Amino acid sequence: MVESRLTGQVRVVGVGLLGTSIGLGLRARGVDVILADASPTNLSIAIDYGAGRAAHADDAPRIIVVCVPPDVTAQIVAAELLAYPDALVTDVASVKLAPLEELRASGADVSRYIGSHPLAGRERGGPLSGRADLFLGRPWVVADHGGVSYQRAALLDDLILDLGATLVEMSPEQHDSSVALVSHVPQVISSVMARRLSDAPDAAVNLAGQGLRDVTRIAASDPELWVQILCANAGPVVDVLREFRADLDRFIEALEHPSQGSSRRRINEELAGGNVGVARIPGKHGLDRRYSSLVVMVDDKPGELARLFLEIGEANVNLEDLRLEHSPGAQIGLAEISVLPEVVQRLTDELSQRGWRIAG
Amino acid sequence: MVESRLTGQVRVVGVGLLGTSIGLGLRARGVDVILADASPTNLSIAIDYGAGRAAHADDAPRIIVVCVPPDVTAQIVAAELLAYPDALVTDVASVKLAPLEELRASGADVSRYIGSHPLAGRERGGPLSGRADLFLGRPWVVADHGGVSYQRAALLDDLILDLGATLVEMSPEQHDSSVALVSHVPQVISSVMARRLSDAPDAAVNLAGQGLRDVTRIAASDPELWVQILCANAGPVVDVLREFRADLDRFIEALEHPSQGSSRRRINEELAGGNVGVARIPGKHGLDRRYSSLVVMVDDKPGELARLFLEIGEANVNLEDLRLEHSPGAQIGLAEISVLPEVVQRLTDELSQRGWRIAG
Repeated sequence: MVESRLTGQVRVVGVGLLGTSIGLGLRARGVDVILADASPTNLSIAIDYGAGRAAHADDAPRIIVVCVPPDVTAQIVAAELLAYPDALVTDVASVKLAPLEELRASGADVSRYIGSHPLAGRERGGPLSGRADLFLGRPWVVADHGGVSYQRAALLDDLILDLGATLVEMSPEQHDSSVALVSHVPQVISSVMARRLSDAPDAAVNLAGQGLRDVTRIAASDPELWVQILCANAGPVVDVLREFRADLDRFIEALEHPSQGSSRRRINEELAGGNVGVARIPGKHGLDRRYSSLVVMVDDKPGELARLFLEIGEANVNLEDLRLEHSPGAQIGLAEISVLPEVVQRLTDELSQRGWRIAG
Repeated sequence: MVESRLTGQVRVVGVGLLGTSIGLGLRARGVDVILADASPTNLSIAIDYGAGRAAHADDAPRIIVVCVPPDVTAQIVAAELLAYPDALVTDVASVKLAPLEELRASGADVSRYIGSHPLAGRERGGPLSGRADLFLGRPWVVADHGGVSYQRAALLDDLILDLGATLVEMSPEQHDSSVALVSHVPQVISSVMARRLSDAPDAAVNLAGQGLRDVTRIAASDPELWVQILCANAGPVVDVLREFRADLDRFIEALEHPSQGSSRRRINEELAGGNVGVARIPGKHGLDRRYSSLVVMVDDKPGELARLFLEIGEANVNLEDLRLEHSPGAQIGLAEISVLPEVVQRLTDELSQRGWRIAG
């Protein structure tokens, strides 16, 4: 076990995906994690899952992480500040200026509050979706408002580093304009696109493929939650939406005259601009940059897959993730194996020596 | 092996993802598949992969499937019609009216041509991305132009049914307006969104999460290819883009006044409309509807995963797909196992009896 930078207790309020993942990650480093949640069922699941323990009357956490929906974040943060007058309190909400202003307006002691936002998530929610490695290599914004002492704030830095995340310092304003672009506007675009399907003919919707599914996946998000987020960050979101609309206007104008050479060139430029933009996204194409992968060809006969796993175990390599592709018609299956980058070469060599064919 | 409905040879021109997948699927039913490709390397890979054989001088295919980029589809279809004067020729391009009109204008014998479009794809291209089951349960549009005899067209129906796809009949016009909505406009939206990132600050782009990745994934598509598709289907695409823009204008207008109760209600309605739209997509959330899955909890100790696979084999169940989640901090891993729907209950029972904990 890698020793924690943190000393003392950490209290996590709210055991959804983020809270449970924080608990699991800190427990893996031996930290004493106290869990609290409005739902006794979720609390019990998170404790059984290994994310921490129930609160005791004599708990004295040094740092508290509030992991609740944005609309109640400031309120819960204020309550925790009052209940634990010696603790630093942070939150993980996806808007940073609005909760800070709400806390200031309420007269809360913001000298012990510093907002933060881990940019990590999964499609699933709830405690059982938690993963100790959820934050590994992910950015975690600390939105310093300048009113917290260096010594206090260092507790949050230690927590973030303990979880393997990358600490990113930003002002609350810079955070909010950044997430407007990379999170809030994509949500609006996805929802507006999906809305076009609501009254479309069945025959058309039934032709949907993976592209449409991807573009509209987040349109399934909770409207209640997103009204809160979007309205709490309306100014920056509107700015980006107007720029998007100007680009879209140009695109439509060009496509209205598809046989003009200049139109084709302009459409190509817009699409190529999309290539440039998407290429800037770290870890694009959905690849998990934490691990390296190799693809092993597995003959389509009984016992081959079990033999592969046994031999990976014999090579003393931990499997981090696995994706099996088995095409009934093909004479081979493909097992895509994710391992830590430092062992991928050794595993490739060992498996090759044992006669496995490595496809990439 | 399930016997093929087809008799005689099938010729597949172009061994990318679609061509190779067609070959693999038909070979699995014992069909004599002839492969052709402009690239000898790709042809050789597709043959080694089991998708078919090289062409012979005395081949006499009854049906030819042209799987090449849309800009050259009509030209290759015309060449195949000439080279094989007794064969029915189809194609798999994603626009249907333009190639038909091009063929008619060129004086080709369209009484032996019927366009089609399988709505199936993957992120990866090339022959090794082919899968025999790529079309299983997927829609495959036959765009009848009314000039092909029933008897001839039946060959295409047999091929589609052999591959496990669902035959959908549409006019070329209906096909093109449907794919404008479910495929071409999502591509434009994704590209325009991604373009917003091209001159964004690094600090913002570095905060990108899975939502942005999904929305912009297809923005990495080839601009050359998409200029061709969009310009070949410009009318229907512009119609949908204008509707999208009208919705977006309403959204922006509401968000310009975030503190008004009516604005919050309107934003909620737009987002809820997105919920309704995305819920109409068959197989939404990226789930593969061909298979049922169960999640098995696997203790984090050596040999457990190999034991699970051995016991699935002993239960005489074929693993169709597998996703392993192993969180270092959690005391259990989760193996998500995909199997044919008819065996999922039996496998659940067998594994439970053997002491495995099933999480869902």
